[in-house]
Amino acid sequence: MNMPEGDDVVVVLKDGATSRQIANVAARIEQMGCQARISEGKERTVIGVLGNGRQLDWDKIEGMAGVEGIAAVDAPFKRASRDFSPQDTLVRVNGLTIGGEQLVVMAGPCSVESREQLLETARAVKQCGAHVLRGGAYKPRTSPYSFQGLGEEGLRILAEAREETGLPVVTEVMEPHTVPLVTTFADIVQIGARNMQNYALLHAVGEAQRPVLLKRGMMSTIQELLMSAEYILSHGNDKVILCERGIRSFDSATRNTLDLTAVALLKQLSHLPVVVDPSHATGKWELVEPMSRAAVAAGADGLLIEVHPHPEEALSDGPQSLKPDRFASLMAGLRPLAKAIGRTL
Amino acid sequence: MNMPEGDDVVVVLKDGATSRQIANVAARIEQMGCQARISEGKERTVIGVLGNGRQLDWDKIEGMAGVEGIAAVDAPFKRASRDFSPQDTLVRVNGLTIGGEQLVVMAGPCSVESREQLLETARAVKQCGAHVLRGGAYKPRTSPYSFQGLGEEGLRILAEAREETGLPVVTEVMEPHTVPLVTTFADIVQIGARNMQNYALLHAVGEAQRPVLLKRGMMSTIQELLMSAEYILSHGNDKVILCERGIRSFDSATRNTLDLTAVALLKQLSHLPVVVDPSHATGKWELVEPMSRAAVAAGADGLLIEVHPHPEEALSDGPQSLKPDRFASLMAGLRPLAKAIGRTL
Amino acid sequence: MNMPEGDDVVVVLKDGATSRQIANVAARIEQMGCQARISEGKERTVIGVLGNGRQLDWDKIEGMAGVEGIAAVDAPFKRASRDFSPQDTLVRVNGLTIGGEQLVVMAGPCSVESREQLLETARAVKQCGAHVLRGGAYKPRTSPYSFQGLGEEGLRILAEAREETGLPVVTEVMEPHTVPLVTTFADIVQIGARNMQNYALLHAVGEAQRPVLLKRGMMSTIQELLMSAEYILSHGNDKVILCERGIRSFDSATRNTLDLTAVALLKQLSHLPVVVDPSHATGKWELVEPMSRAAVAAGADGLLIEVHPHPEEALSDGPQSLKPDRFASLMAGLRPLAKAIGRTL
Amino acid sequence: MNMPEGDDVVVVLKDGATSRQIANVAARIEQMGCQARISEGKERTVIGVLGNGRQLDWDKIEGMAGVEGIAAVDAPFKRASRDFSPQDTLVRVNGLTIGGEQLVVMAGPCSVESREQLLETARAVKQCGAHVLRGGAYKPRTSPYSFQGLGEEGLRILAEAREETGLPVVTEVMEPHTVPLVTTFADIVQIGARNMQNYALLHAVGEAQRPVLLKRGMMSTIQELLMSAEYILSHGNDKVILCERGIRSFDSATRNTLDLTAVALLKQLSHLPVVVDPSHATGKWELVEPMSRAAVAAGADGLLIEVHPHPEEALSDGPQSLKPDRFASLMAGLRPLAKAIGRTL
Repeated sequence: MNMPEGDDVVVVLKDGATSRQIANVAARIEQMGCQARISEGKERTVIGVLGNGRQLDWDKIEGMAGVEGIAAVDAPFKRASRDFSPQDTLVRVNGLTIGGEQLVVMAGPCSVESREQLLETARAVKQCGAHVLRGGAYKPRTSPYSFQGLGEEGLRILAEAREETGLPVVTEVMEPHTVPLVTTFADIVQIGARNMQNYALLHAVGEAQRPVLLKRGMMSTIQELLMSAEYILSHGNDKVILCERGIRSFDSATRNTLDLTAVALLKQLSHLPVVVDPSHATGKWELVEPMSRAAVAAGADGLLIEVHPHPEEALSDGPQSLKPDRFASLMAGLRPLAKAIGRTL
Repeated sequence: MNMPEGDDVVVVLKDGATSRQIANVAARIEQMGCQARISEGKERTVIGVLGNGRQLDWDKIEGMAGVEGIAAVDAPFKRASRDFSPQDTLVRVNGLTIGGEQLVVMAGPCSVESREQLLETARAVKQCGAHVLRGGAYKPRTSPYSFQGLGEEGLRILAEAREETGLPVVTEVMEPHTVPLVTTFADIVQIGARNMQNYALLHAVGEAQRPVLLKRGMMSTIQELLMSAEYILSHGNDKVILCERGIRSFDSATRNTLDLTAVALLKQLSHLPVVVDPSHATGKWELVEPMSRAAVAAGADGLLIEVHPHPEEALSDGPQSLKPDRFASLMAGLRPLAKAIGRTL
Repeated sequence: MNMPEGDDVVVVLKDGATSRQIANVAARIEQMGCQARISEGKERTVIGVLGNGRQLDWDKIEGMAGVEGIAAVDAPFKRASRDFSPQDTLVRVNGLTIGGEQLVVMAGPCSVESREQLLETARAVKQCGAHVLRGGAYKPRTSPYSFQGLGEEGLRILAEAREETGLPVVTEVMEPHTVPLVTTFADIVQIGARNMQNYALLHAVGEAQRPVLLKRGMMSTIQELLMSAEYILSHGNDKVILCERGIRSFDSATRNTLDLTAVALLKQLSHLPVVVDPSHATGKWELVEPMSRAAVAAGADGLLIEVHPHPEEALSDGPQSLKPDRFASLMAGLRPLAKAIGRTL
Repeated sequence: MNMPEGDDVVVVLKDGATSRQIANVAARIEQMGCQARISEGKERTVIGVLGNGRQLDWDKIEGMAGVEGIAAVDAPFKRASRDFSPQDTLVRVNGLTIGGEQLVVMAGPCSVESREQLLETARAVKQCGAHVLRGGAYKPRTSPYSFQGLGEEGLRILAEAREETGLPVVTEVMEPHTVPLVTTFADIVQIGARNMQNYALLHAVGEAQRPVLLKRGMMSTIQELLMSAEYILSHGNDKVILCERGIRSFDSATRNTLDLTAVALLKQLSHLPVVVDPSHATGKWELVEPMSRAAVAAGADGLLIEVHPHPEEALSDGPQSLKPDRFASLMAGLRPLAKAIGRTL
């Protein structure tokens, strides 16, 4: 047969294939020196083959009971592709599941500015029903003269807030050599939009054992986003959450242009969870609530929302931050909407 | 007092102003040679002043009972501005109201291709609950060698379909001198994206007595869209419906980039109804349903959806057209969503 | 043989084909009811066939002396394609040739504001060596409340300036029904960027007998520009001059983003002359001189430059207008540059 | 007086200030604990003040002989601003000067693929008159499955080519921890477009003592480019060369959209040298020559050009690479052009 190359191959099972048959095929693949990743999709079960497929005896596998055939993954992204894994990936963080029926809301300030500010915000968002606390300890700023974040002190404050509220923490990592430090404190590490194609950093978080929230670059196509996810997946970390946060366009009426079609398209092309950041996308707090609703209706698995107790004093992103009472009202408005489309909040 | 210029002025009424007081102020403005447009918003009632405000005796008006003060309209668009008219504009077409609680769905083929094709589609979309029939008789095509539409024959077919189904008809007009012809047949005339800044055409429909569906140019800012609406309004036609249909960006994963934030922003800046065209925006029928949901959640007052009984044979835009059964399923999915956000379908 | 369709066909002549042979082939094509357009390129002579090619007896033509073969034009634009006409098109206006060795500079104010302003500018640009006088009588303005041009009076003033200075005149036409009026006064009619896809207008100037300056839309692709040229050419007017005037991008540091690569690419894809408008592209007079130089170096056949005697008082586009003395210095700087690349000014 | 903050201040000297007066002022600033950077511009001499300006006794300085006054630097970028340093910065590399009268051409393959390939190319570009050898040892690739460069082996091959040809070498660095290694081998380190806002990397090269070629991100504004330069300058490295390499737009006719206006604007806003990469900008070798000419005419101080002896076999960027003979012809064509605008090549 025409032997496909390693990372591009899936074994497609027959409709009525039994669990035992599936397990047998997977075992055979592993005996031959590759990894097998079973994915039970709604329409069919497939086994993705990781490793050097050239060493496999494909004719043997094709002849096994329950096997329908062998197929190549067409997209340039392989492990990120829904062809490779038809079943939705569920990312689990401290008992929370991202990518399932439940919508996940990650809320908090742009930057950790002080212990008081963060704890006050953490309590407020917890009370409103947020599931994850967000806050930046390392801040990528356009100007070298702007506030650059509290660094390790910020990480400690985040950990303290988790201790008190029970909320897992997501925070950004900016360079490979701080990945070990950040993953010590954070439950989810964030790759910011400016670093979406910082391949050394993708490599580093690909080797870490923490879920990664990968933000789309403001200049990046959907395919490039999936290729960057592929960097992380191909280095061994399959807990990747994609994030749409607005792209650049010609119109300056909003900070960025939120591309919600990307959400629906990513859910079709990939099995990875997709969340939306309407705060950075719009840059205006008045637009965060309608865009949160729209994101959920478009099929997003969660939201990233900036909340600050005193936006007018924020060291960064004040104009796009919600006060806690407005965040509470946003959450209240989302619940019936979630229910109407078969999800929970 | 510092006398503001004509079109830029609104008279703001006091909180407890009586209907009689409001009527008196309006009458005085008209006596002085300007037009008065009363708008009862949720927060305040204002009277927009049209015409040469310089001739008004502002001190007299400011002193009248019930008047809080005189204010300039800050935005470069005046009559399109929510400052000028805080109350939502309701556009009425054959008993249908656009811009109110009820969502309005306009559906049909990209082009009128034949009597059979259009009637078949009209019956199908009617049965699924569409409110308006769309279909192009004059088609702006990038190539002079592509199908350019059936012209007047297409208009007659549309009128026949209206006769049979009772659905009002929206169709595009491409040049000033065909405005009288098109308005004879159409209930709503559409200005296409490529013509958003065709000022002679805006002028012509501004003088017609038909509602106008104004599509955002694929290269146009939100402010430019409102300025084009202002051209129509300033020529005397205040029945303008704005339409977001996707803008151009660097990513070719979809035909255009649907800018749903524009919907929320337009509803804040203007009193005009806003509808969304997810078919042209995405260019892919698989994305039309999720983007329809997202548009409604973002606050759109309606949708424009391409439906074709046989998309694979369509003379234009086949890949983005829904078959009737998928359109039915889209409509069914929208109903609970509409309800969840306090609207009806 | 596989008979190609009419507008897509060229007859390619052999290397040593004689003038008589070429004339014979052209005559045969015309006898058969099509039009023949002979084009002697540097590398080969071809005859473009206009009209319904299906009626031609292709086997006969293929067998004629001097004929190498028959070829289809691959691009979606046919008559605008260099395959169709390898030889550069030269547009002649009152003794001036556009598209040849000589660079052509069209200069003048954005708008005709008054007789005095225009005559003063016309004399100044004439003295500096400009070849064509530009000035808008009909102005497409984003706002209905901005100065819309002097209309027919502006046309008369332009004609007077031509009378006095001998400079041919280029001015914009905005709607089909004013094409006869504008072509009475103008030597070249301009289609503005906003109207690049106003097909009724392209049709109208396609039937007029005046050279057309077709500006690229600010978010139009190069292919779309050539398709719009094709509309004009296919309606019978082959005197089309293409104009790059900047496209929209995400950066607001300049008014638009001048796409000079478009110039080189258009010269490869098409035989039509290409000019550049650095004034609208940059929006800043300080950048007009370096961008004029760059345009010429990129291969442009001419420039469109805004000059105003008193930019600070201009009714439109003051910040991008050069004073006459700066325009003189720009012209002086261009001369050695033109010479260095084998052109004259 | 109103005391300005440290990094934002320049001391402006009087027209007739003597060298001794200037030296005295600089010495006084340094005595007070700041650094003084003297810049003799065409119009005036200024002294930029680095360090904490708050500790300076501004009244004393303002009163010194030859001082005209103290001024703030208005732009958000300070040390990169022409206000801060009116005089052009000249970057010196192994006897070569970048930013002066002489144009500098950096040529070579996209990637170092083998010893033979690089040496062959190096000899060829040297013979054609190139001044610097370019070649990537570390390659940022969209896909994790594409060739990622030879790494350290590539650096050694580059050094060998320098040894043989005498050409200094420019090569990309992708992560902070390889900066020491790359600067051991390279004469100029390149920050690629994807890393323009990789602040940890900017910090690292800011502390290195090698000239830095900073490429503009493909969707970065001109101001953002200057802010990234500011990161490098503010960490102590003032040998920064800016590079325009095309931005993303909606048109896919070329790989990117070369923004030559950026060159003229950068030269106005900043004192840093600016070079242009027409190979990446256009993605097509046929367009490299006209765009090289246009770049030089726009005021670029140099060019970055991809040359490969066998483009059809290149592991990356073959379609945009010139063969040596075409590169020779490009260089020959540039010489008269350079001369016409007062530069040498």
